[in-house]
Amino acid sequence: MPVIMPVDSVGLVSPTTLHIDNPITLDCGRSLPSYDLVYETYGELNADKSNAVLICHALSGDHHAAGYHDMEDKKPGWWDSAIGPGKAIDTNQFFVVSLNNLGGCKGSTGPNSINPETEKIYGPDFPIVTVSDWVKSQSVLADQLEITQWAAVIGGSLGGMQALQWAISLPERLRHVLIIAAAPKLSAQNIAFNEVARTAIKADPDFHDGHYAAHDTLPRHGLGLARMLGHITYLSDEAMGEKFGRELRTGTINYGYDVDFQIESYLRYQSSNFVERFDANTYLLMTKALDYFDPAKDFDDDLTATMANIKAKCLVVSFTSDWRFSPKRSQEIVNALLNAGKQVSYAEIDAHQGHDAFLMSIARYLEIFQTYMQQVATECGDNT
Amino acid sequence: MPVIMPVDSVGLVSPTTLHIDNPITLDCGRSLPSYDLVYETYGELNADKSNAVLICHALSGDHHAAGYHDMEDKKPGWWDSAIGPGKAIDTNQFFVVSLNNLGGCKGSTGPNSINPETEKIYGPDFPIVTVSDWVKSQSVLADQLEITQWAAVIGGSLGGMQALQWAISLPERLRHVLIIAAAPKLSAQNIAFNEVARTAIKADPDFHDGHYAAHDTLPRHGLGLARMLGHITYLSDEAMGEKFGRELRTGTINYGYDVDFQIESYLRYQSSNFVERFDANTYLLMTKALDYFDPAKDFDDDLTATMANIKAKCLVVSFTSDWRFSPKRSQEIVNALLNAGKQVSYAEIDAHQGHDAFLMSIARYLEIFQTYMQQVATECGDNT
Repeated sequence: MPVIMPVDSVGLVSPTTLHIDNPITLDCGRSLPSYDLVYETYGELNADKSNAVLICHALSGDHHAAGYHDMEDKKPGWWDSAIGPGKAIDTNQFFVVSLNNLGGCKGSTGPNSINPETEKIYGPDFPIVTVSDWVKSQSVLADQLEITQWAAVIGGSLGGMQALQWAISLPERLRHVLIIAAAPKLSAQNIAFNEVARTAIKADPDFHDGHYAAHDTLPRHGLGLARMLGHITYLSDEAMGEKFGRELRTGTINYGYDVDFQIESYLRYQSSNFVERFDANTYLLMTKALDYFDPAKDFDDDLTATMANIKAKCLVVSFTSDWRFSPKRSQEIVNALLNAGKQVSYAEIDAHQGHDAFLMSIARYLEIFQTYMQQVATECGDNT
Repeated sequence: MPVIMPVDSVGLVSPTTLHIDNPITLDCGRSLPSYDLVYETYGELNADKSNAVLICHALSGDHHAAGYHDMEDKKPGWWDSAIGPGKAIDTNQFFVVSLNNLGGCKGSTGPNSINPETEKIYGPDFPIVTVSDWVKSQSVLADQLEITQWAAVIGGSLGGMQALQWAISLPERLRHVLIIAAAPKLSAQNIAFNEVARTAIKADPDFHDGHYAAHDTLPRHGLGLARMLGHITYLSDEAMGEKFGRELRTGTINYGYDVDFQIESYLRYQSSNFVERFDANTYLLMTKALDYFDPAKDFDDDLTATMANIKAKCLVVSFTSDWRFSPKRSQEIVNALLNAGKQVSYAEIDAHQGHDAFLMSIARYLEIFQTYMQQVATECGDNT
């Protein structure tokens, strides 16, 4: 698609697979004897390995955060707005690492992988992985890359939760943490939306209790419904109104149960697109990882105490129209960090795009992001 | 259940069926040759028939708005908080009429009725009924009851839309209109939620394109999902948080895909309850009636012009935490009424219960409601 590659793109990139033969024990008590992590890197690691940045992805993200896999690609990686030469996460200055999380469906070991112990696909038997488990597996990747300390760990939404968990669990291993459009734990309403999505997937007769691969089917309806619903929560009422309003698809009301309004046809399109590129068991797993995330649980529900060991400097960013993880939720993180005496900057960005704003080219947001990262860059030992 | 009947209850009530043999032509262009309307009444009609009040129900409501059908009933009618002797809609002063809307599933002609022309159940062939069609059919009921002018037409949510449509379509036939927790039309986000609900119902293999009765099945999963989702939008994030928080059902995380949190188990209970008492084709019809409601459409999208012919005095009520139809949406109605020079009172009630607040015993709300209705009562010609 980019007949001429944009000058601020990381350009053509390709993923690497790291096979790890050491078992990993997960929060659920089970362990994986071995596993793969697929990752991409952008930029160059400097001599003293002090300029590495880890990108953590959200629910439906993966390792392909920036650039293009080939010249025919219609779209770049999911965070291309923020990663590239001269961008907020400047690949002229940083060595950026982006991986597909354990339990994912884009190459890292997950429900679609072969269980070496049974030589069959894991399917629904793949263990539920938590945010802490991800941090643990990401630290194994860091070890392999010989990165003892990240210049920054960065993520939005569920990615922001991983970034926060890094700062809590492995305080020595990062100098900065950027927590964008996140929350310290899900609300009952957040969990409720996830439960509707899971119920939709599980009720699909093509789901076969998660063994759809063995039946050579896909739970398209269920996963599609989950995506439609998710999509509503990613956008603000205002953004949806601006984009679609009450515009009719054919200019007239049909008095039937098929599509009348543009918004309906948009949701159907989003849904049918998604089911071809994402795995239902991974979707279930990701929603449970979200539901379970609650780092204060281990600290008597005291979020300030949870933050006590953090050594990283923090940037927290929220967006005014985000109703999935509203500014109030980011402020809970900020207040706990302040109460714990940590160094924290907070930006509430005036944006009408809802939760998805964190992925978008919003000038004020990217300016603040870039300014912060420039400061991070000056602290990197060897800026070659 | 009420071993002793509460003193402020309308007591034991029973529905009446009105059979109408005159055809009704609907907005979709089709007509019903004949139809039934089931209704209940509470209180006494006065001599000059000036104290009659019409109650319009919301998406899953029906004619049973107050009192009990028998002494074993676990719950009274759906608006018992507001209707009864000494209550906001005081049955010592008003003759209250509450009907099941056309297209409903509680006795009025709807998808589960027999089509007299085919002698088979209508099912999905039942025409889509609009808010205007309901007003038309409700006016036929008024004619039969010899009520030429309602003291007030009152409704919440979709019921408030019917009340507003009464004031617009038949201005001579009501002296007051009470529009509670409503909107002048659905937003793209509102429509999107309805579309997810419809998609869930239609994707259920037991739906059989709406002919589930012929297959002796019910689309339980689909309708249940629709209800779960609806329920999330009826409650505020805050109310859900207060009621359920992140409380675990068994005190511990299961690391599985079954219920972990109380909110999940509550939603499942709500859902399984609902599918036994509501019809999926009616649910589809009701959501389309909501989507299509847009009275300004006939007035070049000018809401002020839409209000021009209204003769009723108006009370508009909204609730601070209602995010389905937020106070902003009620204010659109209020502003249009004011711009059109109409007499309107507006109350924004501080309540954390979300959209469902309109059904609840909230002191400030019921006080304002009652004070307004007392004024309506003083205007009724013959207060015997």
